[in-house]
Amino acid sequence: MQKYIGPTPSVSAGAAKLVEALVANAGALRCVVSKGAAGERLIDLGAATLGGLEAGRQLAEICMGGLGVVTINTASGLARWPLGVTVHTSNPVISCLGSQYGGWTMSDEETGFFALGSGPARALARKEELFKELDYADHFNKGTLVIEGDNPPPPALVKRIVSDCGIAVGDLTILCAPTGSHAGTAQVVARVLEAALHKAHELHFPLDNIVDGVGTAPLPPPVPDFVKAMGRTNDAIIYGGRVQLYVQGSNEAAQKLAEQLPSRGSSAYGKPFAEAFAAVDGDFYKIDPMLFSPAQVTVSNLDTGSSFHAGELAPEIVDASFR
Amino acid sequence: MQKYIGPTPSVSAGAAKLVEALVANAGALRCVVSKGAAGERLIDLGAATLGGLEAGRQLAEICMGGLGVVTINTASGLARWPLGVTVHTSNPVISCLGSQYGGWTMSDEETGFFALGSGPARALARKEELFKELDYADHFNKGTLVIEGDNPPPPALVKRIVSDCGIAVGDLTILCAPTGSHAGTAQVVARVLEAALHKAHELHFPLDNIVDGVGTAPLPPPVPDFVKAMGRTNDAIIYGGRVQLYVQGSNEAAQKLAEQLPSRGSSAYGKPFAEAFAAVDGDFYKIDPMLFSPAQVTVSNLDTGSSFHAGELAPEIVDASFR
Amino acid sequence: MQKYIGPTPSVSAGAAKLVEALVANAGALRCVVSKGAAGERLIDLGAATLGGLEAGRQLAEICMGGLGVVTINTASGLARWPLGVTVHTSNPVISCLGSQYGGWTMSDEETGFFALGSGPARALARKEELFKELDYADHFNKGTLVIEGDNPPPPALVKRIVSDCGIAVGDLTILCAPTGSHAGTAQVVARVLEAALHKAHELHFPLDNIVDGVGTAPLPPPVPDFVKAMGRTNDAIIYGGRVQLYVQGSNEAAQKLAEQLPSRGSSAYGKPFAEAFAAVDGDFYKIDPMLFSPAQVTVSNLDTGSSFHAGELAPEIVDASFR
Repeated sequence: MQKYIGPTPSVSAGAAKLVEALVANAGALRCVVSKGAAGERLIDLGAATLGGLEAGRQLAEICMGGLGVVTINTASGLARWPLGVTVHTSNPVISCLGSQYGGWTMSDEETGFFALGSGPARALARKEELFKELDYADHFNKGTLVIEGDNPPPPALVKRIVSDCGIAVGDLTILCAPTGSHAGTAQVVARVLEAALHKAHELHFPLDNIVDGVGTAPLPPPVPDFVKAMGRTNDAIIYGGRVQLYVQGSNEAAQKLAEQLPSRGSSAYGKPFAEAFAAVDGDFYKIDPMLFSPAQVTVSNLDTGSSFHAGELAPEIVDASFR
Repeated sequence: MQKYIGPTPSVSAGAAKLVEALVANAGALRCVVSKGAAGERLIDLGAATLGGLEAGRQLAEICMGGLGVVTINTASGLARWPLGVTVHTSNPVISCLGSQYGGWTMSDEETGFFALGSGPARALARKEELFKELDYADHFNKGTLVIEGDNPPPPALVKRIVSDCGIAVGDLTILCAPTGSHAGTAQVVARVLEAALHKAHELHFPLDNIVDGVGTAPLPPPVPDFVKAMGRTNDAIIYGGRVQLYVQGSNEAAQKLAEQLPSRGSSAYGKPFAEAFAAVDGDFYKIDPMLFSPAQVTVSNLDTGSSFHAGELAPEIVDASFR
Repeated sequence: MQKYIGPTPSVSAGAAKLVEALVANAGALRCVVSKGAAGERLIDLGAATLGGLEAGRQLAEICMGGLGVVTINTASGLARWPLGVTVHTSNPVISCLGSQYGGWTMSDEETGFFALGSGPARALARKEELFKELDYADHFNKGTLVIEGDNPPPPALVKRIVSDCGIAVGDLTILCAPTGSHAGTAQVVARVLEAALHKAHELHFPLDNIVDGVGTAPLPPPVPDFVKAMGRTNDAIIYGGRVQLYVQGSNEAAQKLAEQLPSRGSSAYGKPFAEAFAAVDGDFYKIDPMLFSPAQVTVSNLDTGSSFHAGELAPEIVDASFR
């Protein structure tokens, strides 16, 4: 089958529309819009305000640069936790890896601020190694940055960010939602498809060959404690997440991807994430990166019509994590 | 976790937009728009016209003042009746109790008209005791009132209504759909979350502590006979409804709410509603009010991360009712 | 219950809005918009471009003239293929038979072009016998035609088409998606409700008595080979499709419809469609037409409240077909 070589959409343009809709409805979404010290626009979705599930759903679509559809449903596939989030995009590489992935390391020595930025502003700045492989550069005069945490970057860092993005500081919007907030929880779990994309990249599957995808995962109950929240949102994906990827290329490559993609292939598989995290004394980078992927995967090859299934849900681990 | 103290949205403003969209598409929705004797706008969704399921879905969102998302799906959780309706709102107290609940007693001695009005106009008029506890007053120049029945209020009553709402009669829209119509059936079943909110209030759970919620229930086949229609729509919630509430406060309070909330705790539980209704000779107010609640409940405490499950679906009673 | 006698909506007007939205977002949907030789607008969703699942979802709504809601979900009801498409319309006869059905035979002797046209332009031209029974004529200045194939009609045929539709050639949009493309696959499976409507018509059930409907079916993995693609999309409906129809009239008629509607009543039922097709040496018209219908059906009579269930899913045949 042919490759697509037409124009690629702007994730920052897509996000900008969704951000304006969120701002216009901020009261109902319990989000607070303010102006940051450097002149940027700040939106709090769950740090010093309550936010909510719908705010999180919208945040997830913003993270994907308007190229994904995120829905709340009761078809998670887990009997005890039927409430789920489903993500669907026909631009999985750009929307998940080029925008949604939390890959932009943001640190400020003076204040000690550290965060992994996500969202479409990443594709304006292209500071990450990943962009060399994505073959995607965005150009737009408004930037949208998502911080999974309580605090936005300090003013000096904001100025470096807008410089990197090539935009005016007044044209940058930063959205904050900590992992344990309702919006943050939903936003993180909506990364179920992104987790599959990121692991496919780690497995050296050619990204250009991943052309469509749908993911679904149960929505864990939010929990204020950061480690627990990180645990539950990871477990939702690792033990409760399902993904169907549509790829091109050979059946051998598609089958290999399917077999390697599910979380069960990881040495760290088998217990709630918070336990695995404790077992390595809280050193995130000591956890086997192959753990971060959906429980169940179907890879369908559009060039041949063949599909490959692997993995399965682990409801009992989800129960142990969410309870 | 912090409380939210920002601006609250206007349910009448939210409904007004949805009403205009419905009117613009009235032909496809088989709804009939006309002018009432007092000058109000009338929309018939199922009394002297056929209406339909999509009209009912939109009516449910109107009832919630535009603060809820109502979707038709095939994930009800009941094998024989997979078609379901799912309701989701990050403003459950305002949208369900402040707007959707049928709590405004409307009667006219001269004509004998009687109805329980629902919809956002209730929060303009605030005639009910309930509003003293809700701490919510809406202000908007257009009113939307929903009548679960065949007939709109007579002109003299309409004039009192607009006076109570503080709006011009030409700015009032009244939507009518009898319980047995297709739109009416869908609209009533979409009250699955409202039923949980109302019972939580009866149980004296602090409403300010209920901050988000999702409900789902199977869609019964509409039936013209009023008692049967009332029976099926109630059974859809009582024996087929599931709700997840997100609350704040102590775990003790959350657990107690979960245990008391499901319908199975009622003395009237166990048979189709129409039978319970017949057993009290059709005197609605003799039925244990604790019956009116979803079959299955999960209460998740956002302050602690703990969840409490109680109740279960009763597919055989749903089958007996819907058949 | 009363019949609805109000204004009927224009499927061409409804489709025109959706077509403009698709065109505005063509890059993200990987669709290619161009001008045809006769001056018509062409949109390729999967022939010489990749397209995708979301393009197919939108194409399905365009096929239904904007009168249906088509959603992607993970509630197909089939364990191995949870990804599904759900179709819902309160105007099933007009949207499915008057617009979505592929009933307009288009052939051009000179070029040998042959296709069955679908979409709202059919109701402008009304060239088919079927329209004598539908009692529906559309009038609009823009036409939308859908071709399930690689190639649009040749210029001479395009000119006859616009003449039949009574529109200028520049006001005709032709959308192409072959069966084996991602968009084409989704679009065909979204005909699950239309298949029920068409068979109801074959069974001589009065179409005016079918007033609402919901259908759902699993999404097969697309496969380039046409016969396999035709097989899988048919199997998705025949062995994996579920429909709930809302009708008026007598219970006898409703019950008879339910019993006759499911695919299992066909002599060709029981093996993947591609096998049945091979067994008749690829002569489509030798296949029992009663096969083309959903696996499972519920017919609910709005006049009486009675429902009739028949048929069941055949997951093992779906698996044999999709694998």
